[in-house]
Amino acid sequence: MNRTLAVDAKNNIGNTIEVAGWVHRVRDLGGVVFVILRDRSGRIQLVTDSEFNLPVESVIRARGTVSKNDKAPDGYEISMESYEVLAEAAPNLPIAVNQDPESLGLEAILDNRMISLRNPKILSIFRLQATCVKAFGDFFRNEGFTEIKTSKIIGGGSEGGTNLFTMDYFGKTAYLAQSPQLYKQTMVSSGLERVFEIGHAYRAEKHETPRHINEYVSLDIEMGFIESEKALMEIEARFMGYLFETVRRENAEDLEVWSATVPDPETCKNIPIIAHDEAKAIVKAETGTRVLDINPEAERVLCDWAEREHGIAMIFVNEFPRRKRPFYTYPLGQKTMSFDLLFRGLEITTGGRRINEYSMFTEALSKFGMTEAELGSYVDIFKYGCPPHGGFAIGLERITQKILGLANVKEATLFPRDRKRVSP
Amino acid sequence: MNRTLAVDAKNNIGNTIEVAGWVHRVRDLGGVVFVILRDRSGRIQLVTDSEFNLPVESVIRARGTVSKNDKAPDGYEISMESYEVLAEAAPNLPIAVNQDPESLGLEAILDNRMISLRNPKILSIFRLQATCVKAFGDFFRNEGFTEIKTSKIIGGGSEGGTNLFTMDYFGKTAYLAQSPQLYKQTMVSSGLERVFEIGHAYRAEKHETPRHINEYVSLDIEMGFIESEKALMEIEARFMGYLFETVRRENAEDLEVWSATVPDPETCKNIPIIAHDEAKAIVKAETGTRVLDINPEAERVLCDWAEREHGIAMIFVNEFPRRKRPFYTYPLGQKTMSFDLLFRGLEITTGGRRINEYSMFTEALSKFGMTEAELGSYVDIFKYGCPPHGGFAIGLERITQKILGLANVKEATLFPRDRKRVSP
Repeated sequence: MNRTLAVDAKNNIGNTIEVAGWVHRVRDLGGVVFVILRDRSGRIQLVTDSEFNLPVESVIRARGTVSKNDKAPDGYEISMESYEVLAEAAPNLPIAVNQDPESLGLEAILDNRMISLRNPKILSIFRLQATCVKAFGDFFRNEGFTEIKTSKIIGGGSEGGTNLFTMDYFGKTAYLAQSPQLYKQTMVSSGLERVFEIGHAYRAEKHETPRHINEYVSLDIEMGFIESEKALMEIEARFMGYLFETVRRENAEDLEVWSATVPDPETCKNIPIIAHDEAKAIVKAETGTRVLDINPEAERVLCDWAEREHGIAMIFVNEFPRRKRPFYTYPLGQKTMSFDLLFRGLEITTGGRRINEYSMFTEALSKFGMTEAELGSYVDIFKYGCPPHGGFAIGLERITQKILGLANVKEATLFPRDRKRVSP
Repeated sequence: MNRTLAVDAKNNIGNTIEVAGWVHRVRDLGGVVFVILRDRSGRIQLVTDSEFNLPVESVIRARGTVSKNDKAPDGYEISMESYEVLAEAAPNLPIAVNQDPESLGLEAILDNRMISLRNPKILSIFRLQATCVKAFGDFFRNEGFTEIKTSKIIGGGSEGGTNLFTMDYFGKTAYLAQSPQLYKQTMVSSGLERVFEIGHAYRAEKHETPRHINEYVSLDIEMGFIESEKALMEIEARFMGYLFETVRRENAEDLEVWSATVPDPETCKNIPIIAHDEAKAIVKAETGTRVLDINPEAERVLCDWAEREHGIAMIFVNEFPRRKRPFYTYPLGQKTMSFDLLFRGLEITTGGRRINEYSMFTEALSKFGMTEAELGSYVDIFKYGCPPHGGFAIGLERITQKILGLANVKEATLFPRDRKRVSP
């Protein structure tokens, strides 16, 4: 008999079907036992008047007849006629799977990651995250972007060189790339013009905050023939609208589990664009305190302000001062054609136009105390005709975190890496 | 004026349009100059009776009126009225962009990667590769698979531990993952049941062959509730058909540039499944030589045999001996429920059913001289109820190589890493 998914039981009233999955919960009322079976589609109640002594998380295949029962969790149940044990679980689960994870601490959840991921509420985070990845690819492909996969092992630290993980590469020292920046630019100038990459990025930063991990998935784009960062903010605002629309449609249940909502996709047209100086003035006006930087507290204040004034808790901050941006950022006097996107109090994107003219590039290098030799053949892309271009990167875990309202970005990472955690 | 892409010039006969791109070729006939402009969509001829002294690869924006001209490369040309230089190229290109790359050596192509990628024939490899990535995601999502992103930094060598790159992780030694194997299995047992990952994998192997690179993109799947490797071969054969169909439709030009064809998608239904012993017998019968392993030469012989006997140069070899497979492979006496897929003489996939029962798992560990402690919490997934499952991985660069008939897998890698090459 073919397996039927739990979600399809309701289409089989009166039929005998076979289901398979994990024993999620057992209630023995003496004489009648209710077993909640969990599979990838959801859960279904099995009823039997025989004994049922399997520990929760055992995997079984069960047969029985479907009937409507308003008292069953989803309104349907299966009168179990027989079952087969595919894998019996040990009885001492290291962490609860069938309880709200709110009662478990983050450290316990991460220490027992192999099992805590079975918790349906925790697992729902990663269903939603998968939609974010898909939406990113679909949107940018549709805008004429080509997907690329670039090396994460690099011979030199090309963005300034701090905070790089070092590795042994056949007896020589190499580094893990902190972004695909140089490769994205190479592929714009190769003639692809518009590229995106979904890949890991590595930062050997010693931060221990709810917003940092040392390995993350970067949703990167780079596009040619733009005149300023405005074109980048325009396309990102449209992407955010598309993302929210897609998540609403495909992850309604996951949002509900976390009592989360996404912004109305239409409101992404209203995301304000505020220059760095002006943003600091808003923070001063809102809090009475002068800030030198858009620090985490300022990010929260700015998003609250945007929500009140523009109806969406997102804000683009552009025209960052040159000294706060990497050497390759296109200058605008003492400022730059660059921006951050803040969402619900957290920076989720950094981007900007890049320098594309060779003479301006060499000037910027010397201003930042760097040399052409350090950069190797990267310099060639500017020497031999590179169009005006720019790009940005979205942190996948951060956007997942903020959509669902998670307290810590590690919750939105399957196997997070921090200073202390390198397994599982 | 909005920019028009080269490919759209033909829809603008008699109109004045603006195009932008790279100067691909200049022919000065004295009195009239023909400039071939290249953009992401293709190429278009510009004609002028003024001087035109820019080096090739300079980036320009040009305006003019479109007319039909049967002598122009694509049947259309633009009478250039004015142009603006966006970025002037230096005149001494390190490697030719507008010539057939066949005349350039592989080392020269890779040494000058930042510029050689501009060669339209070389660049076409990566347009086709992008389609392979997209087709993989689309196909498996449609089959109920969820995309995952797992850590590439691991605390221990969990698949046997040889050939791992080591790195410094905040003062401790960590490793780059050689596959997402354990994480895929975790996510099957988490309840997602069907997962895929598109990510980098690392092998610190000292091979120097046309089929090896030290960092590659692995197209990985893992699925639960299967009884043997047959279900895996079935879904992979369907995927290959879908891939060939998609590439035919979306990359007809790229195939043509390389004089390449993909197998008829229908013939993927005929891919033979041959047990390891039988495969060796076929090699013996075809060549007169007895082989102990399916070595590279045997892979070529088997694909030739499959093409002759089954009309497609692909073959599944299953039932590999246990000693040739990792400890987690599901045993079948002295053999295993595992397989390789060979395509045009090259192994492009390894897969199989995995052990899912805890007692069988611990037995396998001791048989392979390993301990539970080495594996850490990975063992938990088997202890607490893991359904029968299996999966496979396709090498993205290898499949790209074989579709286009490239001599070396490095040609199908944007920035290949080998023993000597760690940049650009």
